[in-house]
This record gives sequence, structure tokens and C-alpha cells, in this order.
Amino acid sequence: MKQLTVELGERSYPIYVGEGLLNDIAATLGKHRIGTKSPLLLVTDEQVAKHYLERVKGLLEAGGYKVATAVVASGEKSKSLSVLEDIITVALEAGLDRNSAVLALGGGVVGDLAGFVAASYMRGVRFVQIPTTILAHDSSVGGKVAVNHRLAKNVIGAFHQPEFVLYDIATLKSLPDREVRAGLSELVKEGFILDREFVEWCDANAEKLLALDSAALEHALYIGCGVKAKVVSEDEKEGGLRAILNLGHTIGHALEAVAGYGELLHGEAIAIGMVGAARLSAKLGNPASIASETERILRQFGLPVRIPRHLDTDAIMGAMMHDKKFTEGSMVFIIPKDIGEVEINRSVSSVWVREVVDSLKEGE
Amino acid sequence: MKQLTVELGERSYPIYVGEGLLNDIAATLGKHRIGTKSPLLLVTDEQVAKHYLERVKGLLEAGGYKVATAVVASGEKSKSLSVLEDIITVALEAGLDRNSAVLALGGGVVGDLAGFVAASYMRGVRFVQIPTTILAHDSSVGGKVAVNHRLAKNVIGAFHQPEFVLYDIATLKSLPDREVRAGLSELVKEGFILDREFVEWCDANAEKLLALDSAALEHALYIGCGVKAKVVSEDEKEGGLRAILNLGHTIGHALEAVAGYGELLHGEAIAIGMVGAARLSAKLGNPASIASETERILRQFGLPVRIPRHLDTDAIMGAMMHDKKFTEGSMVFIIPKDIGEVEINRSVSSVWVREVVDSLKEGE
Ligand SMILES: NC(=O)c1ccc[n+]([C@@H]2O[C@H](COP(=O)([O-])OP(=O)(O)OC[C@H]3O[C@@H](n4cnc5c(N)ncnc54)[C@H](O)[C@@H]3O)[C@@H](O)[C@H]2O)c1
Ligand SMILES: NC(=O)c1ccc[n+]([C@@H]2O[C@H](COP(=O)([O-])OP(=O)(O)OC[C@H]3O[C@@H](n4cnc5c(N)ncnc54)[C@H](O)[C@@H]3O)[C@@H](O)[C@H]2O)c1
Ligand SMILES: [Zn+2]
Ligand SMILES: [Zn+2]
Repeated sequence: MKQLTVELGERSYPIYVGEGLLNDIAATLGKHRIGTKSPLLLVTDEQVAKHYLERVKGLLEAGGYKVATAVVASGEKSKSLSVLEDIITVALEAGLDRNSAVLALGGGVVGDLAGFVAASYMRGVRFVQIPTTILAHDSSVGGKVAVNHRLAKNVIGAFHQPEFVLYDIATLKSLPDREVRAGLSELVKEGFILDREFVEWCDANAEKLLALDSAALEHALYIGCGVKAKVVSEDEKEGGLRAILNLGHTIGHALEAVAGYGELLHGEAIAIGMVGAARLSAKLGNPASIASETERILRQFGLPVRIPRHLDTDAIMGAMMHDKKFTEGSMVFIIPKDIGEVEINRSVSSVWVREVVDSLKEGE
Repeated sequence: MKQLTVELGERSYPIYVGEGLLNDIAATLGKHRIGTKSPLLLVTDEQVAKHYLERVKGLLEAGGYKVATAVVASGEKSKSLSVLEDIITVALEAGLDRNSAVLALGGGVVGDLAGFVAASYMRGVRFVQIPTTILAHDSSVGGKVAVNHRLAKNVIGAFHQPEFVLYDIATLKSLPDREVRAGLSELVKEGFILDREFVEWCDANAEKLLALDSAALEHALYIGCGVKAKVVSEDEKEGGLRAILNLGHTIGHALEAVAGYGELLHGEAIAIGMVGAARLSAKLGNPASIASETERILRQFGLPVRIPRHLDTDAIMGAMMHDKKFTEGSMVFIIPKDIGEVEINRSVSSVWVREVVDSLKEGE
């Protein structure tokens, strides 16, 4: 098992990464002073429930916990206020009180949704992240929780840090292949932010990672969580630095919104977005090789690097204007200056963005 | 004009109390570094809109602000997730960004609702309270914001402090008489928490207060806000002390829930609840005169001091069990030990509570 810490003063918390950690879930809750008197609320989705719900519930009950469960439909559509309200019904009926904790067992959807339940139920109860996707190395660390609005993703939410993150990589074995690739997209993104060394390590270990080799995964997720943890420690509320984690997300979020949640996975959308950011980098005077290298690495992970033809450029540009990263009209982009080095550019011309979006259309 | 400060370190903020302050709303925003580049969202309800919306919007626009408005139906029913979602639609369509601010123009309903919009929109934007009811001396100070769930009041929310509170007592002149009485209920409650002197001042000035005499109101609201500000400064997140503000609220909230939001005003329900707390005090060994004096003072303000007959005792008890003030099954009550002195009692027997509820039934 590997362990790291998100440093946030008195709200600091550990991330545990390793194989088989779920077996110790009850003891780990106890270690974090989450007692057995008040009921727990375990939130998960239908897919994850199939594989792990009975087992996790059993482990918790064996540890003396009363457990209420809320199982939501799998997929982004569950990140809504109406699903949140349904979960709160379960919480109230189960008698959750201020000493209770909400446990998120699942990927980023479950983490974001259950996290906002924990943030808003009785104005905030404790929260535990049990990520079960690769992508969730990102979403489970940092305390950003939210649901979507039909006009924009993640626009209703809070900052609510978990008590701890328990990352059992054994749960990743049941992940569908497409989800594995999408998750590795975000992991490679951490490399683009961190340094060339980790990008090259990912490049060299792509096959092992795609095959879910335990040692490779544990190393990669430890590094990935570490990047996230470090940035969050330095800038919890996204005053500035934390924005670098949004590499690829400006275009990526717009693609997800325009395609309708579901057609493109988050990791797929940001893979395309990272290529877009790299092409913008060239327009800003950096070497064009950054874009071609970004593209080559992402292709190796079987990720899309082009915008589906039927997505309308005007609609994509429009979705970007709704994105919360645009402050007072100016366009903010995270730009890779080189592989492993990003900068925040607050004055990217929307004309260039449109050119890049057009250049990324499939078949062009 | 009177001014006081809620002391919360770097999140400290002022409360301005006086007649005619709304005229300076634009300048006051500017003083608090809320600029004119990003649009404002002004939230109010239909009743308040009739009296003040055009004027306030005009004053803001004259000050160079772009203003989007959301007008919700008057009354407790608007404190819901679905109304929150509608307001966020307005915010997104108006292009509200992270530098925007949400202004609540209205009573506690608008303040709680708009405050939770501000807390959750893009994970938090700035917030300004412009209370227009007497009761809102309480609700506008302290940062507790929330919406209701059909099973429980205020159960979905956040702590989100405003940038400032601008209390223009001129707006109170249009308040319906019943709302005046209900608001004074909460104001007298501050006295029961603070000291006998202010309770006696309220008692002596009841007629002036009911007639909305400006000098009396300014004094009373300044004191009332001061009580709230002091308690909040010492215990922002209701770890302990802040709970004393809930005098009368345990029974009061249950009555509101069982009656269905609307039949009893909040201030009316807590008036009954305060008499209930005073009767519990007698059972705990304090003089019975506390209950009779509490009752006499509240009657003088035209407030109800009995539970409507048709409200079922079992239903009232059940609603209390859902109340978030019950931690791990034990019943917590704020008990007046004397007029002007309260204590938190964490082990009140539910049998006594039931006896008190029964004793308060109308006609008994
Ligand atoms: N909060 C943040 O900081 C942050 C950061 C990045 C992404 N996100 C959010 O994360 C979400 C995407 O997360 P995700 O990619 O994990 O999606 P997800 O939670 O929808 O999981 C992907 C799919 O895999 C299934 N699944 C999950 N774990 C499984 C397992 N172990 N075995 C089999 N199937 C499993 C799920 O049922 C789902 O169908 C988006 O909503 C995004 O906005 C949040
Ligand atoms: N956040 C807190 O700390 C806190 C504390 C106490 C109460 N509250 C909440 O406050 C709410 C009750 O507040 P309220 O009593 O102000 O109710 P309210 O906001 O519903 O206002 C009462 C009525 O008066 C009308 N009104 C308001 N201002 C007016 C004016 N100047 N002229 C004419 N009509 C006017 C409104 O339209 C409404 O019909 C409850 O939801 C309660 O939960 C919150
Ligand atoms: Zn992401
Ligand atoms: Zn109240």
C-alpha cells in the first residue's frame, strides 16, 4: 500500500492506494473516528453495485455499522438535483444525522454526486471517497463536488473535502475497456502537468497500464493522485494555480455538452481537448511538435484525438462561453508550453480557438 | 445609521441598519469591491417585487450594474431545489460568472434560497443580504442558507456568509401586520437569549414596535442583529453555542412541518415553541413563572401561544425526530433558565416533551 497526504492544515487527509484495501474499510473508518452510532449512507451506481455493493455493505455491517444505500443509474445523467433530492430522501428516512458520513463507492459521477449530498445535507456531514475508476484518481481528490445543470456541467456544487480516499485498485479489474482508456487519458494529463519523465514512463508502460497490471497501476495512480494532491494543497479553491488541472477541459467540457452527456466519455473528450490545447500552443509560438507528440501518445492509449464531424462548431464555441472558466468575457486556456509543462493563458483569442476546433474536425 | 460587525476573521462583514439605506445600494456594493463588469443576480419574491423591485433595479443600473432578476412566488414553498434550479437557469442565461454577486432582496425565504444559490453556483459566488422583514434580522446574519426537503425544513444547504447586510428599515413599512408580529417573535427571542433588560425594553415598547416606530425599530433591530452576530462570531458552524439561537425552534419547526408550510408563520410557530421550552424548563426544576411570563409577553405582541387543536401530537413528535438537532437519538433542547438566560440541555426526556406538547393544545 502507498499513502500520500493532501495538505490542507486541519482539513488535511490521506489517500490510500493499493490492492485489496476495501477489506479494511470498516477499520479505516474507525481509525478516522467515524463511529458506529450514526448510520452511514453508501452511495453507488447500478454497475458498481453489481460488482461490489453486497460485499462492501457486508464488510461495513460486520464492522458494526448501520448502512443505508442509494443506488443511482450509471452515467452522467445521475449528476442532477433531482437525483440528489432522491438520495436525501433516503438519508432522511434512514435517520442520518450530523455525525453520519456519506461514502461514495464508484467513479467520478458517484463521487461528485455523493460529495454534494455530503456537502449540503444538514449543511455538511463527513464524506469518504472510495474510487473505483481510473479517472477517479482525479475526481476523488480535491473536494470539488457538484451536479450538472442542463445548460452547464458541474455548475451547482461546493468544495467539500473527504475524510480520506481509499483507492483499492483491485476494483479496477471489472472496468470496461473503454473506461480504462478514458481514465488513462486523465492520468496522462497529470503527466503533461507534472514533468516529461512521467509522460515518458506512461508512454513506455502504455501496454501494461491498458492491461491493468497491478504494479504499473499502483505506481501510476500514486503519481497521479500526488499531482492532484499537490496542486490542491497549494490552491484549494481554484484561486489560480489549481486551474492548470483543467488542461484539455475547456474544449473537452464543451464537446461533452454539445454531444449530449453520454456520446463521449469525459476522458475521451479531454483527450481531444488536450490536442486542441497543444495546437493553440503552436499558435502562441511554441513548437508544433508538442501537438504531434501529444496526439501520438494519446493515440497509443486508444483515445480519440479528433472532434466527431457532426458536432457543430458554433455550438461548441457557444458551450465554451457558458463554461465557468470564462471570467468577464476573456478566454482562459491551459496551454502546454512543452511536454510536462503548462501555463495559464488568460487572453487566448476566440478566433484561434475556433480555428483549432475546425482543424480538429474528423476527416480534416 | 447604525453599524455592527460579524467577526469571522478574514470573512468578517458589516451589518448596516438604518432608514433609507437602499438609496446607497450601488455605492455600498462598490465600497465592498463588487464591480460592474460581471452581472448581478437580484433574487426577490412576488410581494417584495411589487413594492421594491423596479426601484432597486433602477438604483443598481444607475450605478452602472447589469442586473438579472429572478422573482419567485412568495412563501416557504419557494425554498425548494426545483426553484433553486430555475434561478440557476436565469444566472446561466444572464452569464453570471465567478466575479458576480447574488443579492437577496426580501425576507428569510428569499435570503435562505438566494444564499444557497450563491453558495452553490459555480461552487460559490459572493452574496449580499438586503432583508425586508423583521424576522430577517435573524435569517440575514450568520450565513446559514438552505432549501427545504418535503420531509424536513432547511435540510439541504450550506454555510455561506454575505459580503454585507444592508437593512433598510423603511422597507418594513409595507409589511403585513401578521408578518410584523411574527418577526417581533424572533426579536423577543434574542432578548430571551441576551438579557432581561432587553426583554423588558421590548415589553415596554411593544406598542411602538407593532406600530413600526422608526427609532424603536432601529434600536431593536440593532440589538437583535447584535445578538445574532455575537453568537455567530463565537460559533460559526454551530458546533455548540450557536444552537442557543434555536430557542423555541425544536417544537416550532415540528409545528410548521406538521401544519404544512403556510398555516403557521415561522415566528408564530416559534412563539408557541418558546412557551413549550419554558414549560420544559419548569419540569427541569426552574420556576413556573418563566413560562407564564414568556406567555404574557408573547401575547402582548399578538402572537399565538397554543398549538392548533387539529395538529396531531404523534405527528409533531415524529417531525421532531427528523429534526437535525437530534444527534444520535438523544433530544436536545434550548431551555430558558430564567428570562434572558438560556442553556443547552442534551438529555430532555421525550416523555416530558410529549406532555408539554399535549399541555399546549388549544383549549386545554
Ligand atoms: N470532482 C472533480 O474534481 C472531478 C475531476 C474529474 C472528473 N470529474 C467528474 O467525474 C465524472 C467522470 O468520472 P468517471 O469517468 O469515473 O465516470 P463514472 O463514474 O460514470 O464511471 C464510468 C462507468 O464505469 C462504471 N464503473 C465504475 N467503476 C466500475 C468498476 N470498478 N467496475 C465496473 N464498472 C465500473 C460506472 O458504472 C460507469 O458506467 C464526470 O462527471 C466528471 O465531471 C470530477
Ligand atoms: N438562515 C437563517 O439563519 C434563518 C433564521 C431564521 C429563519 N430563517 C428562515 O426565514 C424564513 C422566514 O422568513 P420571513 O419571515 O422573513 O418570511 P418571508 O421571506 O416568507 O417573508 C414573509 C412574507 O412577507 C412578504 N414580504 C417580505 N418583505 C416585505 C415587505 N418589505 N413588504 C411587504 N411584504 C413583504 C413576503 O413576500 C412573504 O409573503 C423561513 O424560511 C426560515 O426558515 C432562516
Ligand atoms: Zn477531468
Ligand atoms: Zn427562526
